[in-house]
Amino acid sequence: MAKQNAFYAQSGGVTAVINATACGVIETARKHRGKIANVYAGRNGIIGALVEDMIDTNRESAKTIAALRHTPGGAFGSARYKLKGIEENRAEYERLIEVFRAHNIGYFFYNGGNDSMDTAHKVSLISKRMGFPVQCLGIPKTVDNDLPITDNCPGFGSVAKYVAVSTREAALDVLSMAETSTKVFVLEVMGRHAGWIAAAGGLAGSGAAGEAPHIILFPEIPFKKRAFLKRVRECVRDYGYCVIVVSEGAAYPNGKFLAEAGTKDAFGHAQLGGVAPVVAQMVRDNLGFKYHYAVADYLQRSARHIASATDVKQAYAVGEAAVKMAVRGATAVMPVIKRVSDKPYRWKIDQAPLSRIANKEKMVPRRYISKDGFSITAAGRRYLEPLIRGEDYPPYINGLPDYVTLRNVPVSKKLNTKFVV
Amino acid sequence: MAKQNAFYAQSGGVTAVINATACGVIETARKHRGKIANVYAGRNGIIGALVEDMIDTNRESAKTIAALRHTPGGAFGSARYKLKGIEENRAEYERLIEVFRAHNIGYFFYNGGNDSMDTAHKVSLISKRMGFPVQCLGIPKTVDNDLPITDNCPGFGSVAKYVAVSTREAALDVLSMAETSTKVFVLEVMGRHAGWIAAAGGLAGSGAAGEAPHIILFPEIPFKKRAFLKRVRECVRDYGYCVIVVSEGAAYPNGKFLAEAGTKDAFGHAQLGGVAPVVAQMVRDNLGFKYHYAVADYLQRSARHIASATDVKQAYAVGEAAVKMAVRGATAVMPVIKRVSDKPYRWKIDQAPLSRIANKEKMVPRRYISKDGFSITAAGRRYLEPLIRGEDYPPYINGLPDYVTLRNVPVSKKLNTKFVV
Repeated sequence: MAKQNAFYAQSGGVTAVINATACGVIETARKHRGKIANVYAGRNGIIGALVEDMIDTNRESAKTIAALRHTPGGAFGSARYKLKGIEENRAEYERLIEVFRAHNIGYFFYNGGNDSMDTAHKVSLISKRMGFPVQCLGIPKTVDNDLPITDNCPGFGSVAKYVAVSTREAALDVLSMAETSTKVFVLEVMGRHAGWIAAAGGLAGSGAAGEAPHIILFPEIPFKKRAFLKRVRECVRDYGYCVIVVSEGAAYPNGKFLAEAGTKDAFGHAQLGGVAPVVAQMVRDNLGFKYHYAVADYLQRSARHIASATDVKQAYAVGEAAVKMAVRGATAVMPVIKRVSDKPYRWKIDQAPLSRIANKEKMVPRRYISKDGFSITAAGRRYLEPLIRGEDYPPYINGLPDYVTLRNVPVSKKLNTKFVV
Repeated sequence: MAKQNAFYAQSGGVTAVINATACGVIETARKHRGKIANVYAGRNGIIGALVEDMIDTNRESAKTIAALRHTPGGAFGSARYKLKGIEENRAEYERLIEVFRAHNIGYFFYNGGNDSMDTAHKVSLISKRMGFPVQCLGIPKTVDNDLPITDNCPGFGSVAKYVAVSTREAALDVLSMAETSTKVFVLEVMGRHAGWIAAAGGLAGSGAAGEAPHIILFPEIPFKKRAFLKRVRECVRDYGYCVIVVSEGAAYPNGKFLAEAGTKDAFGHAQLGGVAPVVAQMVRDNLGFKYHYAVADYLQRSARHIASATDVKQAYAVGEAAVKMAVRGATAVMPVIKRVSDKPYRWKIDQAPLSRIANKEKMVPRRYISKDGFSITAAGRRYLEPLIRGEDYPPYINGLPDYVTLRNVPVSKKLNTKFVV
């Protein structure tokens, strides 16, 4: 097979370790120069391919690429941009293949979540139909941890560690002050449909009675106001304080989010935010307790300073594995993480067809959530705990992490035709 | 002088390093057993003395006390409880002296902010008048960094580091996504009257044009909506995104807080919260940009995992110094941090009379804030930068910081009279 270029794009919300995956892709591709001439990265994700604005990663030094491993955010820019169905928007798919053909791109590495796996799958199909077959590899990335088949998703372990550590720390603060000040603390975390991140808050305590967090509100468990308020009152009575971790996706039994903003994002999903003040105010209005709340928002998914070493390793490994699979000829697959054992925690990289992953969401199974719906079970803890293990500190200069900025030199255009996204 | 006991209490909002100060106090007292028999700690701060509920720190091992150095929160409990003026509430002061006398307490170490220094000062005066002179030492602690005379306050350096690191990380996230998603990100930080914490956000970038944060909103600078919106629009136009760090105390020219909740805390200060959504919504309503916001709240002041090594050292040093001053016979003083030089950063411990510290607030000086009021100057950077320097990671077990919990064994009561606070 002749030497071809690869195209790599980051998609959707970035994470603390998506650049570690980029590092894995680029470093591994550089070891296979006989098959992969260069890795072009999409500026702002897939949009970079559509508008023919690609970044020449060969212009970055080995040292710079290595530093991606410890740098959060998306080094080439990511995009919330979903390609529609082939029938609805054939022009976009045709444009992609046109750009790939012009730049001799035979490999497409798409680093994202459910939507992106769907896109990668479609591109692999249409490229064949158009007579320019591109090997399409999905690479998992999502703080939501909601991709099927893979045991967990790179990006999740680090946000899980951030949430567990932050909950433990804030709980110590609240406990100190509860006698005369704040009695109820609410931490809002991400997780639109799946409560994996909220579940990770449960790792802050050992699970013994009285240990924070006292209540977790999962999107998987319909919110029942009365039971919730009863539990808050009991915690304050018995332990002097109450720490609550609430998922942005927590919803009433009728499906309405506790904090529905009414706006929608580019993928048509309802845009959420502000469930913490809603929950806190509910406590204040009904029980009269003084509260504080925090909204972790982007802080949680960019917190490379407290990344999980397990997560960093796995993020790199899926990037590396995708390239190795590609040079062996695979297409329409995604590397997945397979858990070999819990204790000691061991894992390996396996592969799964994109068709089995695209557009599917993996929720927190009921057996990971306690009967009353407010905490995690021993089984949930067994699953989550290895994922936050290990620290992987970035280097620091003058008190701040030394994160790298790439040169991001553009690849010369060959088409020079305008395409409006 | 005969051997006496010491009383140590934590006061007001706790920090990531107030326990490092407790560690300094207890470890140093243990080296002066000839003068200080035992350190009793107030359970829930000064309230512990009033209700005669004190903790016997001799019951904690040397290893446990050493672990306080890396444990956030207030290990003995803190309190938001201000003793009123002597004339208004003589009974409380008399009760304190009664308890101190009953337990042979000759030293009072009060670890807090402005209000606590006032209390320590008053106790020193009244104890003399009541014929049981107690040596009263204030020990500085406040994330707000607003005590006068001392160059900076233990607790501030760590929250400053947290805010600078978090701002840098979130900015990388927003920059990655700005093309198709969030363009404006708002981070709300603490600082009711003084904008030191917001100022620390400025360390996230080098100060070069275009680097985040693009806008800091200080309580010291009256908020002007038009100028603010103009700047946001320019940032999005010129850099593609805009990162804003806003102090909870940001206020309009008429003094009204941007986010006035209308409730008051135990000290009679207006309770704030929620300025980030106010600012974000203002941007959305006027400019139409998609936003995200984070409210760091307690996460910022309990984040021992990212504590500043400088801060940890200074927090320990003021505790150690207070005990040394006490055994040398000092009273009504507070150890202060004196900056000897900026480059290299060198500091030493000095002392100042409590009368010069009590009830005074140190704001961010105008020369640390840029002319337009939206960023920090080189002078501000020179002051702030050394305070976040160095990392001081806690030990970890299974992915989580190994924070210590004390036994907190009570000292046997001698009075057994009830005192209602």
